[in-house]
Amino acid sequence: MTARVRVPASSSNLGAGFDCIGVAVDRWLVASVTSAAGGAISIRRRGRLTAVSVPVDDDLLTRGFRAACAAAGAPLAGAVIDATSDIPVGCGLGSSAAAIVAGVLLADAALELNLTRQQIVEIATAIEGHPDNVAPAVYGGAVLSVRTPAGIVSTSLKVADGLELVLVVPPFPSDTKAARALLPKTLPHADAVVAASRAAALVQGLLTGDAALLGAALDDVLHVPFRRARIPGYDGVVGAAQNAGAFGATLSGAGSAILAIAPRERSAAVGAAMLAAWRTAGVEAELIRSSHPVPGATVSRIPQTIPVPTELS
Amino acid sequence: MTARVRVPASSSNLGAGFDCIGVAVDRWLVASVTSAAGGAISIRRRGRLTAVSVPVDDDLLTRGFRAACAAAGAPLAGAVIDATSDIPVGCGLGSSAAAIVAGVLLADAALELNLTRQQIVEIATAIEGHPDNVAPAVYGGAVLSVRTPAGIVSTSLKVADGLELVLVVPPFPSDTKAARALLPKTLPHADAVVAASRAAALVQGLLTGDAALLGAALDDVLHVPFRRARIPGYDGVVGAAQNAGAFGATLSGAGSAILAIAPRERSAAVGAAMLAAWRTAGVEAELIRSSHPVPGATVSRIPQTIPVPTELS
Repeated sequence: MTARVRVPASSSNLGAGFDCIGVAVDRWLVASVTSAAGGAISIRRRGRLTAVSVPVDDDLLTRGFRAACAAAGAPLAGAVIDATSDIPVGCGLGSSAAAIVAGVLLADAALELNLTRQQIVEIATAIEGHPDNVAPAVYGGAVLSVRTPAGIVSTSLKVADGLELVLVVPPFPSDTKAARALLPKTLPHADAVVAASRAAALVQGLLTGDAALLGAALDDVLHVPFRRARIPGYDGVVGAAQNAGAFGATLSGAGSAILAIAPRERSAAVGAAMLAAWRTAGVEAELIRSSHPVPGATVSRIPQTIPVPTELS
Repeated sequence: MTARVRVPASSSNLGAGFDCIGVAVDRWLVASVTSAAGGAISIRRRGRLTAVSVPVDDDLLTRGFRAACAAAGAPLAGAVIDATSDIPVGCGLGSSAAAIVAGVLLADAALELNLTRQQIVEIATAIEGHPDNVAPAVYGGAVLSVRTPAGIVSTSLKVADGLELVLVVPPFPSDTKAARALLPKTLPHADAVVAASRAAALVQGLLTGDAALLGAALDDVLHVPFRRARIPGYDGVVGAAQNAGAFGATLSGAGSAILAIAPRERSAAVGAAMLAAWRTAGVEAELIRSSHPVPGATVSRIPQTIPVPTELS
């Protein structure tokens, strides 16, 4: 059995939705798999994935694939994976989550594991550590994921028409683990209260498109204050986005990319202003605009064993 | 000029919406005012307001009335106020916010101050300290209020059909200031992250009626863990609500009342179970069920100076 998956990039946090809210972004990891004898996995990496240099056993595609087998109680299967991507790696665009989800989905499809979407999110989250990129990669659109005693509950958030995501991606990655280590152990109770109100404002702001709510929601107090100094030019880029008409701007995930949310009619100007601001700080960034709801991962099974062409479309 | 106002009760926090989310409840404070010569205010208190024993200058009706005059730059006017209420006083049902809002609205109407609703919320919040009861008392329904650099932004939250609020009110009040003093100065960062995700879950859960989201949202980590020991029988009443089919239950405001959110078809059973649980703890509580969206404050101006009958309807 051969299978092919297509998994979107994603931007998590969106300011106040720290570790719980993410949105699919119109960049893609595409991978195909052919079952192979034995338990060995080989991966051909193309596109942005050539930036990945870990051993194949540590590759997130491999880890997702094997975790799916383990979760389904299936023997570890061998696989030949051909993967390509135009998702910048290590820049806060969910390249890790996309690879993990792709691995899980490839195993599910090729080995007919019959995992539910909920299980796929849980398996991938166990590897990734949090569901905020995994869930939009699986479901598409904007997703809120909440941990409950019964597991992770993921729910699609309604997003008002006319909102556009504007992402600028610098040529340097951000070390997510190092970014997480910058978070304080404790927080003033008053800041936690502000954080909660802004997380509520994010859900309501996405639903209604209200400028004041989105502005408050994008001004996070849980993580950005401790991380932004690591991104050279951060304040200038955020200020440029606001001046050009964005509701606000913030780190995409833990960075290094910066995300703005803007009214669609301002998004071209916002993107240009963000690029220009970074250029004055000596950073040549890449622009990604993402508007219409981006669908989640898709899978196609092909009942044959000849290699399947893998293209970004 | 004579004016009459009708202001609803409210329940704030709803678990994870600490200090930012509240919902109007179908109990009412009704007051009328007649302008009087000089700056003195007199208040005739009836209904539940007979429980109020502060001097008239410290009465929240007076404070709201005078704050509205001050905010509008009007001279402090005298007034004869006749007020009655069926809102339990000091039990976490927004009796303070209702009185403040009533005072502000009486001044606005009787003295033709032409305050906006936003101004009314800001004036009342300055006295109350936070907007979570004030905003639903003014606007009705469920309201999210977020502090922004441009002031308090209040926005109506959509609530799924078929949700009912079930409140049980014990015969003892809760001291809100003492309850606030119980909150810790700091919180583990991980708890603040949970709090934010559950505040997001509250907005989304109210919108969709999703049981898992509402269950998570009603299981607050910002304030209830530090306050619930003050309310005898709290855990038993919350457990009884859940066992009877509520999505969850929590303190109404800072207590003493306990709020459950339940599917309408379970709400009678939930209310009965909560009352019974409290009875086994020796507490005879009062039941309030509130379903259809409760409107906000209404004002009628009467261009005459004879006393106006004030009834709870």
